[in-house]
Amino acid sequence: LIPVKVVILAGGQGTRFWPKSRMKAPKQFLSISPDGESLIQATARRVKPLADNQDLWIVTNCMHTEKVAEHVPYARIISEPVGRNTTASIGLAAMFMRVQSPNDVMVILPADHAVKQEEILLKALNQAVKVASEKDVLVTIGVTPAYPHTGYGYIKRGEKLNGGPAFSVSRFFEKPNFERAQEYCKNERFYWNSGMFVWRPEVILTAIKNNLPRLYEGLEKIAKFIGTSDEARALNEIFPELESISIDFGVLEHARNCAVVPAEPFGWNDVGSWDAWAEHFASDAEGNLSRGDVMTIDSQGCIVYGHDRLIAVLGAQDLVVIDSGDAMLVCPRNRVQDVKNIVEELKRRGRTEMV
Amino acid sequence: LIPVKVVILAGGQGTRFWPKSRMKAPKQFLSISPDGESLIQATARRVKPLADNQDLWIVTNCMHTEKVAEHVPYARIISEPVGRNTTASIGLAAMFMRVQSPNDVMVILPADHAVKQEEILLKALNQAVKVASEKDVLVTIGVTPAYPHTGYGYIKRGEKLNGGPAFSVSRFFEKPNFERAQEYCKNERFYWNSGMFVWRPEVILTAIKNNLPRLYEGLEKIAKFIGTSDEARALNEIFPELESISIDFGVLEHARNCAVVPAEPFGWNDVGSWDAWAEHFASDAEGNLSRGDVMTIDSQGCIVYGHDRLIAVLGAQDLVVIDSGDAMLVCPRNRVQDVKNIVEELKRRGRTEMV
Repeated sequence: LIPVKVVILAGGQGTRFWPKSRMKAPKQFLSISPDGESLIQATARRVKPLADNQDLWIVTNCMHTEKVAEHVPYARIISEPVGRNTTASIGLAAMFMRVQSPNDVMVILPADHAVKQEEILLKALNQAVKVASEKDVLVTIGVTPAYPHTGYGYIKRGEKLNGGPAFSVSRFFEKPNFERAQEYCKNERFYWNSGMFVWRPEVILTAIKNNLPRLYEGLEKIAKFIGTSDEARALNEIFPELESISIDFGVLEHARNCAVVPAEPFGWNDVGSWDAWAEHFASDAEGNLSRGDVMTIDSQGCIVYGHDRLIAVLGAQDLVVIDSGDAMLVCPRNRVQDVKNIVEELKRRGRTEMV
Repeated sequence: LIPVKVVILAGGQGTRFWPKSRMKAPKQFLSISPDGESLIQATARRVKPLADNQDLWIVTNCMHTEKVAEHVPYARIISEPVGRNTTASIGLAAMFMRVQSPNDVMVILPADHAVKQEEILLKALNQAVKVASEKDVLVTIGVTPAYPHTGYGYIKRGEKLNGGPAFSVSRFFEKPNFERAQEYCKNERFYWNSGMFVWRPEVILTAIKNNLPRLYEGLEKIAKFIGTSDEARALNEIFPELESISIDFGVLEHARNCAVVPAEPFGWNDVGSWDAWAEHFASDAEGNLSRGDVMTIDSQGCIVYGHDRLIAVLGAQDLVVIDSGDAMLVCPRNRVQDVKNIVEELKRRGRTEMV
């Protein structure tokens, strides 16, 4: 058995889930399941076959350390003093691992995605673990596109690696427009970039060193203090200076040793918006999804999430209405991607209590 | 000077103003003015030039007697034990007047309408008072239609009466569809039926007697106890038995002695819906009307009424969002007439606390 450390990235803010998701209560703590299991809890549970409880690490913002510990009590938590995007988070976790278990394989998972067919995902992750243990490659999990999604990045595969399940990566593509997304979907060489990665610490740290040498230097400085009484102080002093850049944009798109392990669609969804959130619930005969004290009349395709008061929706189509108790969102379904603009505008207006 | 009694009809429920307007707090107590003056207060203030304070009567449901007294402390209040539509209310007031001041002219006004140019209205009312004092006619105030409103009834005028300002009424028309409303507007003989009436008690009581003899009998039974210690008991026992029918449908449409005094448009509005309510407030550059803690982004023509929480509206057109504290309405502007359906549905579901 190949030793694995699972690293869950739980630094997200989920601004597109305003007003339920807030700086103090981001999306990974919300639930999309009927039994109330949060997204981060589901992510942790899902990978139990891959690694023992003590090999589950969660990287999060220090603001959320307690909440993470509540949701996943057995996790080893790495607390970032500030958010510095995924390269810094993954690099930091890799440094911890290089100190403690340099030959383990890291399985990196976003905390706030949804998965319906867990076996398919586990099969792909196991394949990726094997590839990453044998080769100095950066393995991504690519999902066969189920439809032309414009909210995901895409991966174009190259040649097969040793006849294995993995392919080399020919290119990463940013979120496309709809026309391009349609083209990608017609081409069997394209996959959705799931944001799930598998590699050994040394391999990713080398890639960071090659592409972002200054960020790497900062990580090395922190690494010297890992396990010492100055660990927290070093993190607080050095981590905020790290460049804020995503692992895709900062490293993977430039690295030449990327690989992709394809997976059949496994009901994967980045739960990136209220629209995607609604896909996880059954709607009524008119296509309305209601939670709480809600009454819909002559309305179709609405997502209505009540809190402490009755919400009556009359004669509306494809409308999203979310009451969080201290704030309420009203917007058409086709604008859910722009809910983050509300958060931006609230910040601009100094309404910090609302973001 | 002709002695006048002003009778304000304040029995309405305003179900189209749900969730702000409730059985316990109907529309006449809401405000559309920046200084917080309620609709019923504005109605009472507006007619001060017509009659002294002690000659202002308000007919209301006993449930609202206290609230009416708060809003218009000097009014003489007639409390109905139950609502029985306008014929019963007007007939009851006429019986009180026949006992106490039979030769005065009654000026009957709905409590919950809005008027912008009060002088124009006062001029028309004064003309109507003169006509009603001289002739045995039932005078209605007709408003020259400003646009093809489908929410109002219409009056078609007949011949001029004695070269006076009044005309005989050729016919009353129910609320028309839009095509008909357009025809009516093109015809100078058509007026909006404002629901404001002027007549002497004897004239309207005779008309009620001729058209609704049983209702009249009931009123007469009550009248015997007016001014006695049994007045309240008689009201409680007899009034609920009266037929519930509007004065237009039950009496005016059949009476042959109806007259209409035309008035130029005086910014009159029955404030019959949230849409009409919004006309009384200035909107922002994008045509949105906001009250309370509201943020509109990429939205046009919306009416948003906050209560205790921020409401953010994103990418919406012509949407009505009203938060009353314990309930919230979301509907397109073109469906505001149907808000009463929500109240019906709530009653059907036994949600009496919400109606």
